[in-house]
Amino acid sequence: MATMLRNVKGTSDFLPEEQTARRAIARTLEEVFERYGYQPLETPVVCYYDVLAAKYAGGAEILKEVYRLTDQGRRELALRYDLTVPFARVVGMNPQLKMPFKRYEIGKVFRDGPVKAGRSREFVQCDVDVVGVGTLLAEVELLSLAADAFDRLGLPVRIDYNNRKLLAGLTQAAGLPGELAGEVILSLDKIAKIGRAAVADEIAGKGAGRESAEKLLEYLDIPPGELLGQLERKQVNDLLREGMTELRALESYLAAAGLEGVTQFSPWLARGLEIYTGTVWEVFLSDGTISSSIGAGGRYDKIIGAFLDNGAEYPAVGMSFGLDVIHEALRLGGKMPFRPPADVYIIPLGTEREILGLASRLRASGVRVELEMTGRKLRKALDYVNKAGVPYAVIVGPDELGRRTAKLRDMAGGREEELTWDELAARLRAARGEF
Amino acid sequence: MATMLRNVKGTSDFLPEEQTARRAIARTLEEVFERYGYQPLETPVVCYYDVLAAKYAGGAEILKEVYRLTDQGRRELALRYDLTVPFARVVGMNPQLKMPFKRYEIGKVFRDGPVKAGRSREFVQCDVDVVGVGTLLAEVELLSLAADAFDRLGLPVRIDYNNRKLLAGLTQAAGLPGELAGEVILSLDKIAKIGRAAVADEIAGKGAGRESAEKLLEYLDIPPGELLGQLERKQVNDLLREGMTELRALESYLAAAGLEGVTQFSPWLARGLEIYTGTVWEVFLSDGTISSSIGAGGRYDKIIGAFLDNGAEYPAVGMSFGLDVIHEALRLGGKMPFRPPADVYIIPLGTEREILGLASRLRASGVRVELEMTGRKLRKALDYVNKAGVPYAVIVGPDELGRRTAKLRDMAGGREEELTWDELAARLRAARGEF
Repeated sequence: MATMLRNVKGTSDFLPEEQTARRAIARTLEEVFERYGYQPLETPVVCYYDVLAAKYAGGAEILKEVYRLTDQGRRELALRYDLTVPFARVVGMNPQLKMPFKRYEIGKVFRDGPVKAGRSREFVQCDVDVVGVGTLLAEVELLSLAADAFDRLGLPVRIDYNNRKLLAGLTQAAGLPGELAGEVILSLDKIAKIGRAAVADEIAGKGAGRESAEKLLEYLDIPPGELLGQLERKQVNDLLREGMTELRALESYLAAAGLEGVTQFSPWLARGLEIYTGTVWEVFLSDGTISSSIGAGGRYDKIIGAFLDNGAEYPAVGMSFGLDVIHEALRLGGKMPFRPPADVYIIPLGTEREILGLASRLRASGVRVELEMTGRKLRKALDYVNKAGVPYAVIVGPDELGRRTAKLRDMAGGREEELTWDELAARLRAARGEF
Repeated sequence: MATMLRNVKGTSDFLPEEQTARRAIARTLEEVFERYGYQPLETPVVCYYDVLAAKYAGGAEILKEVYRLTDQGRRELALRYDLTVPFARVVGMNPQLKMPFKRYEIGKVFRDGPVKAGRSREFVQCDVDVVGVGTLLAEVELLSLAADAFDRLGLPVRIDYNNRKLLAGLTQAAGLPGELAGEVILSLDKIAKIGRAAVADEIAGKGAGRESAEKLLEYLDIPPGELLGQLERKQVNDLLREGMTELRALESYLAAAGLEGVTQFSPWLARGLEIYTGTVWEVFLSDGTISSSIGAGGRYDKIIGAFLDNGAEYPAVGMSFGLDVIHEALRLGGKMPFRPPADVYIIPLGTEREILGLASRLRASGVRVELEMTGRKLRKALDYVNKAGVPYAVIVGPDELGRRTAKLRDMAGGREEELTWDELAARLRAARGEF
């Protein structure tokens, strides 16, 4: 019996139509990344487990989802679960790299976790990071890059931003114990999902005391546009002061970069990951067809230094784009770029050999040419051309060959005309689809 | 103590300069593949082990090199070792696909085998295959594609071709037992490496008899250009006749496609893999700087059908390009495309905020802009620009800002001129590097 053909749960094939669109998305991102001076890096999929599991790498939660394997040399290996640890490793292993080091990497990452809608076990991540810049210029650069990228993808977005220091400062001002700040911030992140009351319960339940929980939520009842102004009129703790100063500076930079329209201060925004130390942001579709974020990032000044543990400081800012969620957003918006498999389909009628030179010539001028190779009857071949969405068919029988002409058939209208090979090349070159 | 940072033996990081070149190679290949009507496919890295190990998939040899792993659901998984088995699986799982199905896939494959020069455990394969075409038009299409691809990469090549039926027919004519044909063909493949006498010994040692071995080698003493002509004047077995007919037809197609100059009939060529059933070819650098082939392919009419075991026939032809060996060939030939990390480097002198609009504007017009974000002194920043090979620096201090101008410095000559922002945008747009 034949082997049962199947894919592993949480992995998929991307057939040509879909993959053509995904590749177009990835190329757009690459082009935008490079316009901001980020350069490509490629790191291996197979890694040493101990490197991925190093302190400060991904944290205990993510280690539960690591695919582990052992090679023939009994090495303990694993598949990478993100592109940030490899980035930190490359920085540590290559002291010759000039700072700031700006790289992007588009590649597959692997997680042996629960499969649900929009969550695969093997997926493409598109990461762009800069290490070596301590000022907010790095944030504004990446926020500009994000706005630019989604604009070029044709997806109207809103970018919500916040600062972890503001959140931590507010929890401190509310009288919450410092060691609970991280957990409390994660609870706040859920307010849109579970509501204010449930968040208050959750925070109080963490041992923070109901009074402090209420005080914290009161800060967050203030409309975002007024919060900083109100706080600026008060005596506040240092952390809060720092967060406010950074947010005001970022606001001013965003205005200078022409990003007021697309960005929005969002004091609730926390970002799940604990690695962030300052600015954080998430990108949302303006029309809300997908409620989760379709890209996110932030400043993580401590991670690379802690991971490398070499006494040096590595201020860093980075963001991630999800290829699959962007693809889904384009699909839902009816904006999936469609591209037929070829610009023209040549059908030889007993002229297979002679047609080869014509095909070469058209390809040399940039036209994407498909050739009928199976000897199908004309009607069947045209049927295929029609279904595949190829805009033109070229038919060359013995008569046309004798006159060194060809019939050009416009598939949309069915109109046919006889052209010389020279005319044909010029016509198709002018008509060919750009992508 | 910090974790020892290292890569697994047989895997590497590709830092920006190298990765920029690799990506340019991959893009050139993609563009050529699409010009011939091949479309992108993406398949998962993580697969079921039993699918990869199915009869007729890769064979016993390759299974020794498969990375195996078990997930949390105790599934027996493996990392793909090539792109052909996934291709066959996709064909089997998607009966809706129109034949002929023409796809390319560029992706990583994994082999837990010995590491030596030019052989990694994790490497990028670029495969292009067509299934559903039984005629030689498929071969000539892929040979044209190969010639086209290397031409565009700037690598002069020679493509050696042969036909497995000719080789098998010759072993039969020499009186060698049919069951030895496969092994004998593999021995013949070594003639350039180990010499005629050693090959004769090896064949005789396989139980073929010295007389038959000698008779076989005598055929191959005939100059390639005369072999078919001499055979055509003799009574030959059916297999040989079929091989000769196919080779003559291919020759005629190659001439019609304008490929006589770049292709060469090579009756010794066998291709190691046993899967091939007809035409086989290998691509070599004309200047011989790399002696192994830098691309190869052939017809494999039985494999997909045997793998799917559904009673249908799947004639197929395909070829593989090695990204790393092509990269190495370009490097050895001094043809590595170099591209600076940006077209221009903007250095603000106390004008960080105001410069953001200028940067956005230049990027919007397609210029790749790097911004000085670390507040380095002018001299240090210019030093960096120089070393990175960025052709222009733009300097904006308070005086220039007041006049809404900038200093444009041509790094090659060191010449500086003051331009308005409008002039600057026009100048840089005209000068920007295309890649």
